[in-house]
Amino acid sequence: MSGAFLALDWCTTNRRVYRIVDGVVAATERDAKGVTATKDFPAELAMIRERFGDLPVLMAGMVGSTIGWREAAYVPAPAGLAALGDRLLRIDDRTAIVPGVSYRDDRRADVMRGEEVQLLGAIAAAMAPADAMLVQPGTHCKWVEMRGGEIARFTTAMTGELFALLRHHGILAAQLGAEVTAGPAFLEGVRDGAARDLAASLFGIRAAKLLGLRDDADAASFASGVLIGSDVAARIAATDFDHAHILADPQLGTLYVAAIEAQGRSATLVDSHAAFVAGITRLGDFLP
Amino acid sequence: MSGAFLALDWCTTNRRVYRIVDGVVAATERDAKGVTATKDFPAELAMIRERFGDLPVLMAGMVGSTIGWREAAYVPAPAGLAALGDRLLRIDDRTAIVPGVSYRDDRRADVMRGEEVQLLGAIAAAMAPADAMLVQPGTHCKWVEMRGGEIARFTTAMTGELFALLRHHGILAAQLGAEVTAGPAFLEGVRDGAARDLAASLFGIRAAKLLGLRDDADAASFASGVLIGSDVAARIAATDFDHAHILADPQLGTLYVAAIEAQGRSATLVDSHAAFVAGITRLGDFLP
Repeated sequence: MSGAFLALDWCTTNRRVYRIVDGVVAATERDAKGVTATKDFPAELAMIRERFGDLPVLMAGMVGSTIGWREAAYVPAPAGLAALGDRLLRIDDRTAIVPGVSYRDDRRADVMRGEEVQLLGAIAAAMAPADAMLVQPGTHCKWVEMRGGEIARFTTAMTGELFALLRHHGILAAQLGAEVTAGPAFLEGVRDGAARDLAASLFGIRAAKLLGLRDDADAASFASGVLIGSDVAARIAATDFDHAHILADPQLGTLYVAAIEAQGRSATLVDSHAAFVAGITRLGDFLP
Repeated sequence: MSGAFLALDWCTTNRRVYRIVDGVVAATERDAKGVTATKDFPAELAMIRERFGDLPVLMAGMVGSTIGWREAAYVPAPAGLAALGDRLLRIDDRTAIVPGVSYRDDRRADVMRGEEVQLLGAIAAAMAPADAMLVQPGTHCKWVEMRGGEIARFTTAMTGELFALLRHHGILAAQLGAEVTAGPAFLEGVRDGAARDLAASLFGIRAAKLLGLRDDADAASFASGVLIGSDVAARIAATDFDHAHILADPQLGTLYVAAIEAQGRSATLVDSHAAFVAGITRLGDFLP
């Protein structure tokens, strides 16, 4: 968007505000005022405009969900910038929400909300080619096939959530406290995970402890490797792409690169923050 | 064992006491005084002898673990009645604990403690042939290949634990409250689970809700189907056995029979209670 506007990446537990001027971030701030911590959305937005400038506002993320300000209906894939820009949910004549994207085929269904901005931004800014596999690791990891610059099909795996459940509850919790690193134990887990026999591989962590076969300092890395390795194996089996572009912070992104390389494909990291700015700036052109 | 003795199936959270006379149960009682609820094992056992008779005692289960009375070292598979009987952990000259069984190959390791009595009992009582696949569903589901009447190799899948984690914590919890039945939603889950893409199939439950594709009344059955179907598919891929003997209560056992049949093999239910009595009676012969 030429000129200036405010962009909000308003997620479940966090929120990031940007003042973007001619496609460049002039100011940004992140806080914990996510959707679940917000009661009065109009009042919150008024405060943001007081602090960042009385400008047009474009929001993305869970703010457009049933637990957010107002529900923005999913746009079915394939979906590109134009499809999303045409379907902005307009709160008023200078305030709008980016819709999420849904996917269906005869076998399965999937949804995203918030990730679409990064994905389309990464292509628009030539951080990845128009036909590419993009990956957004996290609590719910998105694996997205982009075709002709559009979101063509995608699969969400609750890999990060399963790891969190195992780490905080259940029989393995006491073993999984250590930090995860992309070392030998992680790669051993990736190999094990490639068999896609998750429930058995995870019990193996317990058995290894009882038989004294693995130090608990390595158990968290092994478990993470099993989960990510299983996810990678399932996705590789379902795609023709040999290369993946990972939109993630370097710590988590490095684990995915290691797991993908261990299974014979290649991967590179993309700056997810810059991708968001590129995407929301293009979508800002659809504001009045 | 000819004559009379007391058998205890002493698990983590529950305990069952039997007075067995000439291989027949003369009295039995189940309570919640599992290993974790027990501080003074000798005093507990003295009370049991007061109530059930001052007889020799043979115990199995977590009572022989590091959180139990005393640790009975695992006997490596292959292991049959003689191997376990010869390695009873003797507390005194008329009190002993049955050891668990461990398994190792060049790829993985596994353990059981308590299940071995049912397994060997089922074969000894001719409830299953000496070469057979036996399955013990539950929190940690055991899949056991019996060869020549011995426990030859086995795999534990934490299928039941994963279901409990999803049901009580995390993003799917609110959807998974309903009872699980072996109906169409369960079988749909089994088909989905056969792809062994667990983390993605589970997120599909969330997506189906957001897109209005499945009633939450069916979500628990679908999720159970995905988990059990994934477990069955992994085990079928790793064994030559066409038939499985399921040692479980009828409710859970029926789910496993349905999932195994849906994936083109056959299965029948075996009375796990009778199998335990048969096994512990044979092992009772090794008491003095």
